[in-house]
Amino acid sequence: MAPAPSHCHATNGNNGAIAASDTPVKTQHCARLLDADEFRRQGRLVVDLIADYYAGMGEYPVHPTVSPGFLRHRLPAEPPSRREPDAFAAAMQDVRDVILPGLTHWQSPRHFAHFPASSSTAGALGEALAAGINVVPFTWAASPAATELEMVVVDWLGKALHLPERLLFAGGGGGSILGTTCEAILCALVAARDRKLAAIGEGRIGDLVVYCSDQTHFAFCKAARIAGIRREHCREIPTYRDDAFALSPAALRAAMRRDADAGLVPLFVCATVGTTQTTAVDPVGELCAAAAPHGAWVHVDAAYAGSAMTPSALVAALGTDQEYILKDAAAETAAADGGEGVVDYKDWGITLTRRFRALKLWLVLRCYGVEGLREHVRSHVGMAAAFEGMVRADARFEVVTPRRFALVCFRLRSPNKKTANELNRRLLEEVNAASSGPYMSSANVGGVYMLRCAVGSTLTEERHVREAWKVVQDRATSILSKMEIIM
Amino acid sequence: MAPAPSHCHATNGNNGAIAASDTPVKTQHCARLLDADEFRRQGRLVVDLIADYYAGMGEYPVHPTVSPGFLRHRLPAEPPSRREPDAFAAAMQDVRDVILPGLTHWQSPRHFAHFPASSSTAGALGEALAAGINVVPFTWAASPAATELEMVVVDWLGKALHLPERLLFAGGGGGSILGTTCEAILCALVAARDRKLAAIGEGRIGDLVVYCSDQTHFAFCKAARIAGIRREHCREIPTYRDDAFALSPAALRAAMRRDADAGLVPLFVCATVGTTQTTAVDPVGELCAAAAPHGAWVHVDAAYAGSAMTPSALVAALGTDQEYILKDAAAETAAADGGEGVVDYKDWGITLTRRFRALKLWLVLRCYGVEGLREHVRSHVGMAAAFEGMVRADARFEVVTPRRFALVCFRLRSPNKKTANELNRRLLEEVNAASSGPYMSSANVGGVYMLRCAVGSTLTEERHVREAWKVVQDRATSILSKMEIIM
Repeated sequence: MAPAPSHCHATNGNNGAIAASDTPVKTQHCARLLDADEFRRQGRLVVDLIADYYAGMGEYPVHPTVSPGFLRHRLPAEPPSRREPDAFAAAMQDVRDVILPGLTHWQSPRHFAHFPASSSTAGALGEALAAGINVVPFTWAASPAATELEMVVVDWLGKALHLPERLLFAGGGGGSILGTTCEAILCALVAARDRKLAAIGEGRIGDLVVYCSDQTHFAFCKAARIAGIRREHCREIPTYRDDAFALSPAALRAAMRRDADAGLVPLFVCATVGTTQTTAVDPVGELCAAAAPHGAWVHVDAAYAGSAMTPSALVAALGTDQEYILKDAAAETAAADGGEGVVDYKDWGITLTRRFRALKLWLVLRCYGVEGLREHVRSHVGMAAAFEGMVRADARFEVVTPRRFALVCFRLRSPNKKTANELNRRLLEEVNAASSGPYMSSANVGGVYMLRCAVGSTLTEERHVREAWKVVQDRATSILSKMEIIM
Repeated sequence: MAPAPSHCHATNGNNGAIAASDTPVKTQHCARLLDADEFRRQGRLVVDLIADYYAGMGEYPVHPTVSPGFLRHRLPAEPPSRREPDAFAAAMQDVRDVILPGLTHWQSPRHFAHFPASSSTAGALGEALAAGINVVPFTWAASPAATELEMVVVDWLGKALHLPERLLFAGGGGGSILGTTCEAILCALVAARDRKLAAIGEGRIGDLVVYCSDQTHFAFCKAARIAGIRREHCREIPTYRDDAFALSPAALRAAMRRDADAGLVPLFVCATVGTTQTTAVDPVGELCAAAAPHGAWVHVDAAYAGSAMTPSALVAALGTDQEYILKDAAAETAAADGGEGVVDYKDWGITLTRRFRALKLWLVLRCYGVEGLREHVRSHVGMAAAFEGMVRADARFEVVTPRRFALVCFRLRSPNKKTANELNRRLLEEVNAASSGPYMSSANVGGVYMLRCAVGSTLTEERHVREAWKVVQDRATSILSKMEIIM
């Protein structure tokens, strides 16, 4: 073969079919797909773009005023055919001109909807670093440092959360970092299901019943459906305002007894610490006591402990063992000698391919420290408490559910109960329509529609919270005055 | 509240419990968690680190010689408590000194194991950009440009793959970008399962049967288990060397008939274009014909068409609709007016939270063009063809299965059939032990152990392939000469 300059290769000139001949490959194009100098140059463009984006974040409307199709119909219908020399710089300009203005800005200090994505420079750069290094740590051998770093930071996180030692690798337990809560719930559910079916027989999958409250995140019922639990066997137990929308142990106990009496098998309870709608807190201890007589698995959503609690049942359900996964001789020898075993993270989740997520968490903990992160969380809770105070000081409004963390659920009181929901729907719509105003979302709990102000964006300062409240008050004044004219 | 300088917040000084009072938040520490200038400065450190890593990639041993625990026991058991001013730079030094040397380098030009991760600067920077922007496009409203960009690039990719128009958004179909093949298979399987159960009754989940070959990726049987298909209802149909290890339509037909006669319900066939072990290609057309009489779903692994083929069945299985997911008024009005509807990608996969993956694919296609990527793939196929030629030119070796793409499966011939596998196992071990040599993996198909040389790392040049072959030859010579002494 002819030597190629640098690391660039190209085709032998045939079109359409994949080249499959033994003829030497001729160098025609220099794709430079992984060139260090190009990376350095382009990387700086990206860093500057993101830095500029953060610096100007406060100026963007949180939510763009665009209509469906606005971007689709602006971009070419066909992909580019050839590489253009200045394509990267042009693409960065497109990001600034076309893509950023069409985004909902989750890092905006005025983003109070859903639960804001609490970003950090170390987090973003940890992901960038992982993407650049791009290893695939599905087994220990596939990238030892990546697997071991994950074991270290999982224990760090566990300690920061004051988990009992036995849940940590250091105490014979362990955990893994998954991409989303949805995956964590599904993993735990499948592990619980297989453990139960091993005891009662695989044919009884149709008898399994799972429990949650009507406040549990829909990820749970979705996971149950994915795992093959019958739709009608997902019991969403009603909650009430008097219980602050927490799942009642008595109601759970009654539901389980009813199912067991009917010959069904209570499998799994999904308890939540901080529900999505109102951050309600289920009484985990009492729910565990209610579940225990049935041998049902209790999963705590939003708690690291959930999917990490019983690694052996998890690996039994999700483990695989194949020839083409390279075994590491050193690791096997060490294990055979009674030495340290290895963790193959492919058996701890749904997917084989995994990101080097540990690098991000490590960098965040390494840079900010546990106390730094605690202070960050507390500052958000403090700002939410301040917002709550402002709501309570205005007699036109009520705080609907107790604020526990950094979410305030509130609404306009209404003389007319029937139209109260409509009134508050309109309030949210008008609040979110102000282009330099806050962006909030809503909840509908027990038939009561309310606005949600979730403090959690890293860039949010006290003045953003004050300004957000000002917009809510102004919009309310305007709506109420118009209503008086109409009424 | 007292105004805070910049966007820094801190606690009101209480320890342990979360601050929940209405008292003003005092600023004590400046976490600067999302500071633009800090990002710019730290971002350059990251860019330089990655660029240096790429520049020196050829020098690393592909696989580190480390033992389990090497990193775990070197890092502190406790997470850092406080933020140190120079923590980020120190962390980057740790990455260089401690983490990189312990990785298996998937970007190494001498990485020929598994299927190499074919990275690019645009791909890595696309991910970095997505991490920096950090939007969560689970619904159209949650970030319109992110959803629309995904729709655009999914169609671009479909066109690059010459998929029929009806599978594209442009033709009434559509697709989404998932994180891994494992997710894609699970999504397709759940969609097929729910469609079938809607027809035959949910109680019959225990009667469903799925089919694949003994060469299908284990992700499929794992997905079937997650989806609640009985373990003994996953039929792994044997393949044979005479068929180049492709799934036989006649064998599939017979298996399905047998199951149907026994009152079971054939649900799903997983065909593969390019199996993991030997890149065998199943005869998709004939398999579809075999599956059709049973109404079984045929999924093609490694093909975009798989999970994208029937969005409506997918959304029916995985869709959710909640109050607390913000509806976009503009989108709802447009849809109600018979205008353009919106895609909510949360209903297209397992997870609610999603990355802005479209940005990466867009940047790759935008920068390199479809032809540029084709040339890249063809250069790998050309190098694999050259490697194959070298194997064939050495009479001591045989190419075990036909090379179709960029993977060569080969082994040392052995006079003693019984010890042939052991001989080749030893060969792989010695090849991989050379610290500046190639890193390959193995397959065991039909009882035949073979080495796998998968060309696919972006940095691989022709010389790396030649040098890899030289190492294999030298190790073989050494092993064979020692064996002659022993024998």
